[in-house]
Amino acid sequence: MANKAALGLDFGTESVRAILVDLQGNEVGVATANYKHGQITESLPTTGEKLPHNFALQHPQDWIDQTAEAVKKAVSIAGINPADIVGIGVDFTSCTMLPTKADGTPLCLINDYASNIFAWPKLWKHHGAITQTERINRVAIERNEPWLSRYGNIVGLEWFFPKVLETLECDSDIYNAADVWIEAGDWFVWQLVGASSSFNKKHIPRSTCQAGYKALWNSHSGYPSTDFFKALDPRMANIVTDKMPGKLKPPGEKVGELSERMAKTLGLVPGIPVSSAIIDAHAGVPGVGAADPGILVMVMGTSSCHMLNSTNEVDIPGIAGVVEGGILPGYFGYETGQAAVGDAFAWLRSTLNTDFDKLTLLAEQAGIGSDGVLCMDWFNGCRTPLMDGSLTGAFKGLALHHNPGHIFRSLLESSAFGFNWILDCLTSRDIAINRLIATGGLPHHNPLLMQIYADVSGKSIEVHPSTQGPAVGAAMLGANAAPSSVTGFKNMQETITAMSAQQPPLTRINPIPDNHKQYQPIYKDYRAFANSLR
Amino acid sequence: MANKAALGLDFGTESVRAILVDLQGNEVGVATANYKHGQITESLPTTGEKLPHNFALQHPQDWIDQTAEAVKKAVSIAGINPADIVGIGVDFTSCTMLPTKADGTPLCLINDYASNIFAWPKLWKHHGAITQTERINRVAIERNEPWLSRYGNIVGLEWFFPKVLETLECDSDIYNAADVWIEAGDWFVWQLVGASSSFNKKHIPRSTCQAGYKALWNSHSGYPSTDFFKALDPRMANIVTDKMPGKLKPPGEKVGELSERMAKTLGLVPGIPVSSAIIDAHAGVPGVGAADPGILVMVMGTSSCHMLNSTNEVDIPGIAGVVEGGILPGYFGYETGQAAVGDAFAWLRSTLNTDFDKLTLLAEQAGIGSDGVLCMDWFNGCRTPLMDGSLTGAFKGLALHHNPGHIFRSLLESSAFGFNWILDCLTSRDIAINRLIATGGLPHHNPLLMQIYADVSGKSIEVHPSTQGPAVGAAMLGANAAPSSVTGFKNMQETITAMSAQQPPLTRINPIPDNHKQYQPIYKDYRAFANSLR
Repeated sequence: MANKAALGLDFGTESVRAILVDLQGNEVGVATANYKHGQITESLPTTGEKLPHNFALQHPQDWIDQTAEAVKKAVSIAGINPADIVGIGVDFTSCTMLPTKADGTPLCLINDYASNIFAWPKLWKHHGAITQTERINRVAIERNEPWLSRYGNIVGLEWFFPKVLETLECDSDIYNAADVWIEAGDWFVWQLVGASSSFNKKHIPRSTCQAGYKALWNSHSGYPSTDFFKALDPRMANIVTDKMPGKLKPPGEKVGELSERMAKTLGLVPGIPVSSAIIDAHAGVPGVGAADPGILVMVMGTSSCHMLNSTNEVDIPGIAGVVEGGILPGYFGYETGQAAVGDAFAWLRSTLNTDFDKLTLLAEQAGIGSDGVLCMDWFNGCRTPLMDGSLTGAFKGLALHHNPGHIFRSLLESSAFGFNWILDCLTSRDIAINRLIATGGLPHHNPLLMQIYADVSGKSIEVHPSTQGPAVGAAMLGANAAPSSVTGFKNMQETITAMSAQQPPLTRINPIPDNHKQYQPIYKDYRAFANSLR
Repeated sequence: MANKAALGLDFGTESVRAILVDLQGNEVGVATANYKHGQITESLPTTGEKLPHNFALQHPQDWIDQTAEAVKKAVSIAGINPADIVGIGVDFTSCTMLPTKADGTPLCLINDYASNIFAWPKLWKHHGAITQTERINRVAIERNEPWLSRYGNIVGLEWFFPKVLETLECDSDIYNAADVWIEAGDWFVWQLVGASSSFNKKHIPRSTCQAGYKALWNSHSGYPSTDFFKALDPRMANIVTDKMPGKLKPPGEKVGELSERMAKTLGLVPGIPVSSAIIDAHAGVPGVGAADPGILVMVMGTSSCHMLNSTNEVDIPGIAGVVEGGILPGYFGYETGQAAVGDAFAWLRSTLNTDFDKLTLLAEQAGIGSDGVLCMDWFNGCRTPLMDGSLTGAFKGLALHHNPGHIFRSLLESSAFGFNWILDCLTSRDIAINRLIATGGLPHHNPLLMQIYADVSGKSIEVHPSTQGPAVGAAMLGANAAPSSVTGFKNMQETITAMSAQQPPLTRINPIPDNHKQYQPIYKDYRAFANSLR
């Protein structure tokens, strides 16, 4: 088995990463390809039409083309025989979703619809559904929907049904033309296992992770009721039976095998087992080797998701979701998040027309509290705990003697305050947090940021040495989809433990007690500032 | 009389301007010289000692040296015979003030004190006296001081006695070493008319304008009582009799004649009549030819002062001061102000690391309301109506799609909102405002800014074509100090009317009704934002 490896495909906001991890946990090949069209936020690729400012789309052909590019490169780097790839796992940003025809063709790739902005895949950060989200929440509260409390009593602007309802209301032709509404991660798995006109609709793969966290699905009660959807809009009453066909399976369970067509596209061999998809952030939990409950895994990138498995199920106001077995089998998976982290840093760097090295140097000089400058990190709304995409960012305490470093540091501090607020929400309901593990692109490039996170929270943070946590997690899912006769792993837990055995040690960042003390009153100011801005 | 002219000296924050205006109102020569040491805000020139961030000092030798430079150049440009200069007027930023010895020598120019930061002239914007200002206000309220209501019930952080008390408390040696505490404008006039060890202390010139607006003086009751000062600090009980000798005269009244020594320094002839000083902003009122009540003169530069003469005397909360005859004889002069205007624009331009042309273009594209970005223009505290130098600036409503133009426009709009708040304060107490005349450096270089001011207020603004309003006003004071046998003018009113006769027509900027309507709810948001930040 020494030469066998699993393939993880990690679909981010700007790029897709392919990673090959052998069954002992060595990363033997990795490659990234940037989406040709990137995030589509300015104008439609087909017509040049200017998009509304709260639109964020992606191009589905990029998902195919850049995956092929990345996989071929990773295989070449690894020097692996494609026949030795035991399984494929997919993680994807979420809720990124799209309308397709019954054979899986995205509407936006069909001439009749290509010039319609509502036919395109909506990226997770698309914020066009503000009024629809308000109505979904109002109707859910009025009807006292039983599922609402599992989501902290708020349905998020970025979720599945707000995006569907936005399309129905803004352009019912597109809604009607869609045979299938589907998460992009599920769509990609569907492509892998053979989307075509002959593919049985009942077998369209759907992940319990995406469905549970973003589409109000639950293992006991399924999706919301027909009556609920009817109350939103009678035309949408039967959306689940009419337009969401498929079979729900948890991440790590096999849904099919790689098709001839996609094997050719990716330069692989047909027949490789493919796992049900997982949300990118959630893939970070197995990816950093966190097989046990009580470990908060912080996946920090353009936005941040903080995930935790627990033996307790409690309803917490403002938590993005709790799904049984949503991350790991046997535990209640909690998902929380911050909507703008790396994105906000990049925006501020660009706004201040300078570079991160200069800003970081000045931010270090600015010292704790940024000399009174206080920031609210809601530049893309607030996910946890307020679940309100319409909220906006702010700075106060500014005076003529402040330089860009004060402003930048106040943003880093506000990100840490936002994180601390999430910790407060969890621990106040007796959810145990024994360890914090940070992964993703940001923790490695921002020692100042991680020290501020540790100082504000007063907790040690272990930075995972791989920047590919979610991709490795996806590979683990792929391995788990393979027969245990091939891998030797009996279950997901064993897969995680074996395939994280070779990971290098974590870097521990400890809080400095005096700094933690100094941050306490400033965190109180942050919370008061948050109240004043709502 | 065709060749005769008056000399106005206009002392700003960065430079001094000399202007020669003939008795028909023609500007025959003007020159500016930048202070060699500029604003001293970083470190002390003598020792390099780093200054506290709320310090702002100036160098008194710059006032002499750069005036000589500017006067010589203006005389040369005008081609005038110095013997034909009929009078000299001085306007100066205020409250800029300093401690001197009895012969007029500034303490900071004496070796024993040159390395002491408290020995230096404090510029108007120096904000070191926060705790002292708080105490002065508390004591004044406790004692129910009768003068307090004339200043909107608040003594400002930038005024005379806070700056004195700061020195007493922080370094009593400097307080004790000072024989004289004096406004910089009065000090310069004192230099002109012959400061020396033989000069009679009782004749040290002091202007009723500076004394009335910045040092709590009133024509009926004089300065605050010994008991009041004693309550502040027993060591300060007799400050008025011990350390503020001199003779108070209104602007435009002759206080003496140019000395031999200063005539030589400035390249003029001795014996020219010199007028009592005026605050720079207040000089703008005669400078733009506003001889009548009901004309609000907006002097807009690094900060803005908005002055108005009225036939009514009313106490208005948060108004910087009302002084009988403080601007023009026979009227109640109201002074209001905004602490950071051009200063804040320059700070933001520097912070955003770009240039005004780019910012202005983007600000125009951003449109009314800056796409939801709302700014609070308190980057150097709030003068009118809150009189609180400890307040700070803020932005809210920021999101990742905003560019520097949204931020810059929100600052311009907040400046206009701050101005509109001042108008509301005046008109709500039945102070008539019939015309708005803007002058100073900003109105000419910022058509977008002036349009926003007009749109927000819903009032036409006439932009005065001279950028030298205060300097011309100072020259008018100089002319008025000359004998009427020389000028033919019987009083200040006649002087203003005659010497503004040649001024080119004003540029009228009319509000756009639809814009005004759109700004109404945003102005309400601004006022609510202001409340949330106090």
